[in-house]
Amino acid sequence: MDKEISKAVIKRLPRYYRYLGELLESGVERISSNELSDKMRVTASQIRQDLNNFGGFGQQGYGYNVKYLYAEIGKILGLDRVYNMIIVGAGNLGQALANYVKFEKRGFWIKGIFDVNPILKGITVRGIEIRMIDELSDYVKENEIQIAALTLPKANASEMADLLVKSGVKAIWNFAHTDLNLPEDVIVENVHLSESLMQLSYNISCYEQKHKK
Amino acid sequence: MDKEISKAVIKRLPRYYRYLGELLESGVERISSNELSDKMRVTASQIRQDLNNFGGFGQQGYGYNVKYLYAEIGKILGLDRVYNMIIVGAGNLGQALANYVKFEKRGFWIKGIFDVNPILKGITVRGIEIRMIDELSDYVKENEIQIAALTLPKANASEMADLLVKSGVKAIWNFAHTDLNLPEDVIVENVHLSESLMQLSYNISCYEQKHKK
Repeated sequence: MDKEISKAVIKRLPRYYRYLGELLESGVERISSNELSDKMRVTASQIRQDLNNFGGFGQQGYGYNVKYLYAEIGKILGLDRVYNMIIVGAGNLGQALANYVKFEKRGFWIKGIFDVNPILKGITVRGIEIRMIDELSDYVKENEIQIAALTLPKANASEMADLLVKSGVKAIWNFAHTDLNLPEDVIVENVHLSESLMQLSYNISCYEQKHKK
Repeated sequence: MDKEISKAVIKRLPRYYRYLGELLESGVERISSNELSDKMRVTASQIRQDLNNFGGFGQQGYGYNVKYLYAEIGKILGLDRVYNMIIVGAGNLGQALANYVKFEKRGFWIKGIFDVNPILKGITVRGIEIRMIDELSDYVKENEIQIAALTLPKANASEMADLLVKSGVKAIWNFAHTDLNLPEDVIVENVHLSESLMQLSYNISCYEQKHKK
C-alpha cells in the first residue's frame, strides 16, 4: 500500500482493528458503516472517510468485508509479521505483560524477562524464564530481539535503555515514568500511567466546575 | 482561573507537571524557557506559548518561577485535592497500580482492592486489603469512592463498570481491552495497552519501509 495515510487515521486504526477482530471472532462477514458506527460510537461518515483509505469496501449498501479490512489494517499496523520481544523488569507490571497472551496472537513473542533481583532468577512466568541483567546483551543479540518493554523504576530506565540499544534493540515500549533520550533511529512508545491518571482528574475537575455554574 | 485552555495544551500539561516536579525536587527555583526546552526536547517558543496560559512568568530573561507554575498546572489538572480510589481486579496489573506510591503523592488515595477470587480475600497489598466484590457497592458508598481503576479481563468489564456507576463511582480508569458504554456524566479514561503496542509496531514498519527505499 503506497499512499500516505494521515496520522489522525493511524491513531484510530488500532480501535478499528480491535472491533473488526471481535466481529470476525463472532463470525460476522460483512458490516455496514452504520452498524459499525452504532458499535463504535463514531459517526458513520467518519468511518467511511477513514476506511476509504483501504479501498475494497464494496458497493454502497453492501457493507465492508470484515476479514479483508481486518487484514489490510493489520498490514498497515505492521501486524502481518512476528516481533521478538523481551520484558525488562519482572515486577507486577512486567509480569502482567508477560501473562497477557493476546500479545502473542498479534505477533509479539515474549522471549524472555529480565530483572536485577537474584531471588527471581530462574522463576518462570507463563513458561518464560526470568534471567539476570548480565545475560541481557548476549541474549538480545542471539535471539534477534527487536522490542523491549521497560517496566522498571525510572531511576534505572535510562541506563537500561542505553544498554538495550547498544545490544541491538530497535524499539522500546517504555513504562518507566521518564522520557528516554535515545538515538533517532530507536522507536519509543511511552505509556505514562500517571499522566493518564492526571487527564482523568482534569476531566473530573472540569465536569464539576461546569455543573457548579 | 477562568479563561479556556485549549485541549492540545491540556494534553501536554502532565508532562510539564512531571518536569517541573523534578526541578522542584532538585531545588531549582527558576528556569528559562530555553533551559526547559533543552530538558524537554520541545521548542522554547512552544513552551512560552503553552505557559503563557498561566501568566506569572516574570520578565524576559528572568525565567519561570518553578514552584508557582507547578502549583498552577496542578490546579488546572485537578491535583490540588484528594480523590478516593479503588482498584477492581487484584491481578498483576491491579497490584502494580496498588504498589505505585506516587499516585498517593498526587492525591489519589487507593482505599481498597476488589477481586472475585476467594483465595485473595484478606490479603493486603502495601497495607491495602483485598475484598470480595459482594462488598463493593456498600464500600463505595461508605467511603465516598470517586475513581475506580478497572484491571480485569474484558469479559467482566462492562458488568463491573455498571455496578460501579450504580454504586456512585464518578470516574473509571479503564485498563480492560474494551470500550465501556456508560452514562455521559461518567468520566472514562482508557489505557488500552495493546493499542499502544500496535502504534509501536506501526512505527517500526514505517521506519523499515523508509529505510528500504
